[in-house]
Amino acid sequence: MKQLHVALGANSYDILIERGLIDRIGSLLRPVADCPRAFVLTDENVGALYGERVMKSLEQAGYKARLMALPAGEATKALSSLGGIYQALLDFHITRKDVILTLGGGVIGDLGGFAAATFLRGVPFVQVPTSLLAQVDSSVGGKVAVDLPGGKNLVGSFYQPKAVFMDPDTLTSLTGHYWSDGLGEVVKYGCILDEGLFEMIESMPSRSALMERMDEVVYRCCDLKRGLVEQDEHDTGARMLLNFGHTLGHAVEAAQHYQGLSHGQAVALGMHLITRLSEEKGLTVPGTLARLDALLRQHDLPTAVRLDHPDQAMAALLHDKKNLGGKLNVVLLDRIGQARIYPTLPDFFKGVESWIG
Amino acid sequence: MKQLHVALGANSYDILIERGLIDRIGSLLRPVADCPRAFVLTDENVGALYGERVMKSLEQAGYKARLMALPAGEATKALSSLGGIYQALLDFHITRKDVILTLGGGVIGDLGGFAAATFLRGVPFVQVPTSLLAQVDSSVGGKVAVDLPGGKNLVGSFYQPKAVFMDPDTLTSLTGHYWSDGLGEVVKYGCILDEGLFEMIESMPSRSALMERMDEVVYRCCDLKRGLVEQDEHDTGARMLLNFGHTLGHAVEAAQHYQGLSHGQAVALGMHLITRLSEEKGLTVPGTLARLDALLRQHDLPTAVRLDHPDQAMAALLHDKKNLGGKLNVVLLDRIGQARIYPTLPDFFKGVESWIG
Repeated sequence: MKQLHVALGANSYDILIERGLIDRIGSLLRPVADCPRAFVLTDENVGALYGERVMKSLEQAGYKARLMALPAGEATKALSSLGGIYQALLDFHITRKDVILTLGGGVIGDLGGFAAATFLRGVPFVQVPTSLLAQVDSSVGGKVAVDLPGGKNLVGSFYQPKAVFMDPDTLTSLTGHYWSDGLGEVVKYGCILDEGLFEMIESMPSRSALMERMDEVVYRCCDLKRGLVEQDEHDTGARMLLNFGHTLGHAVEAAQHYQGLSHGQAVALGMHLITRLSEEKGLTVPGTLARLDALLRQHDLPTAVRLDHPDQAMAALLHDKKNLGGKLNVVLLDRIGQARIYPTLPDFFKGVESWIG
Repeated sequence: MKQLHVALGANSYDILIERGLIDRIGSLLRPVADCPRAFVLTDENVGALYGERVMKSLEQAGYKARLMALPAGEATKALSSLGGIYQALLDFHITRKDVILTLGGGVIGDLGGFAAATFLRGVPFVQVPTSLLAQVDSSVGGKVAVDLPGGKNLVGSFYQPKAVFMDPDTLTSLTGHYWSDGLGEVVKYGCILDEGLFEMIESMPSRSALMERMDEVVYRCCDLKRGLVEQDEHDTGARMLLNFGHTLGHAVEAAQHYQGLSHGQAVALGMHLITRLSEEKGLTVPGTLARLDALLRQHDLPTAVRLDHPDQAMAALLHDKKNLGGKLNVVLLDRIGQARIYPTLPDFFKGVESWIG
């Protein structure tokens, strides 16, 4: 069992990582939440794969357990899903002394975490992330949210889980789409904070090679995120480094109406674009882009896209940034393994539209 | 200007109380929220009375201001109101550096506070309570919430405002219903914490007499609540004293489907009932009930009710309490001005049904 402690004062918690852990959720939960009831929120895909095993484990540990499975996909992460979840929590008589488990990817973790943060002004919750993206990113750090028609994650809270339980074996069931979705973020951690992690991924030719050491990869990513979250619980400083590749990645995702590249694929592309820019401007050690691109290609992550209206995508990006008080901070690599926050002007992005059109 | 400081570490804020303050909101806001935009949430009744004056004051202080007026009444305090509020915040380009003002009673303060707590994971907000209940109770302490069909305040957060601005002159426009709604809570503060306040209200024969010293009354109530909130921000201990009269009051409100007594009236009745019980059991100094009842009658607050199904009301109360982990704590008066939390068993309430049927 690999274990990490996220030290956030009264909001501290542990992350446990182990293959096969999914069948021991109940006994792992007992020291964290010694209560009568456990409510499991999941989606229909993950529920079909692991729901029965998790419920069995909870009941064996003495919990009254109930499972709710929502349709899989980003559309579920909406305000309109909350009413049904709250009603189910009421029906099951969940109180502030019980516990909510989120079993699934980022959609379920974010939505269920937000429901937990707000039902009765806060019910304890435990994340059980089953996707790579959720394991290395969204389940750690306490950001919970739902989407609005106007954009992603626009409504939410900072609400830390009581624990995060991760079973790397659940990653074997991911489709290629969800695999690369998470892998983009894994490469990002290497880029911004850990050249050793970057080298480790360089040394692995394929998904199956990576899977063999997945508990180590997940542990290392969580440990890096832990460090940033401890410095900056409410995302006003150091945590901004995690946005590497995200500014341009988001612009592309939005331009494709979230129907094109997955989030992690878009981040991969965003890392390529921003590093191409910064290396051209002499702000990044020469050769960094070539090394990054080689790793992205090695793991089937994109380094190019062709949008119908690249100029509109860039205009939308700059409009959004302007709304954030006029400031424009981008995250750049000094070199692989080291990043910085770079305050700049909108002109910085000039020329990018010709690379994405 | 009367001023109170609520000391909650990073969540500290001031309460300002002054007659006529409503026309100086803009200049008072500037030191608290030095930002481009101010979004005012109000209801149609309060908006018609004070909306224009508040907007003028904000614009004179250099804010880009926008006002949104929702239908007045408890039905507005629902999940279904949130989508429209969030969309209006997006349309007005509100960011985490701007400010939201809630101008109105408890419905607007609770709903707008919850929207502020959750939009972009938290936007600064300032309470401008215009009802007596909101001034002496709901605007101080950071409890924000919406109702569910299954019950009141079931979804919410603890989210402290950046400031609370109160103009006691706004209380002159309250109907008798809303006046007594707040006065029940004022009497409660006297009962549980401050015999001097109780005596002050005893010395005032009418609403108009009370209105003459309303800034002092409001100040005193807020100061008492401040003390409890500072001890117990998340409502797990000392703040429970504020529930005096609420257990039985809620049972009656619920039995009347929130269409009968107002909240403050129900609390008045609840204070009468619990004190009748505790005095009969020898747990309260003899004569306390008579003194309480005299004050309630003096200000037209109820000391009796007749429900169609009193036994059902009591069964529902005990069922709710049982769901809260089996514990049953009631707040009793030792005497006027001093209360305590008293752990007991459901049997404690035996006989009440015959008083409310």
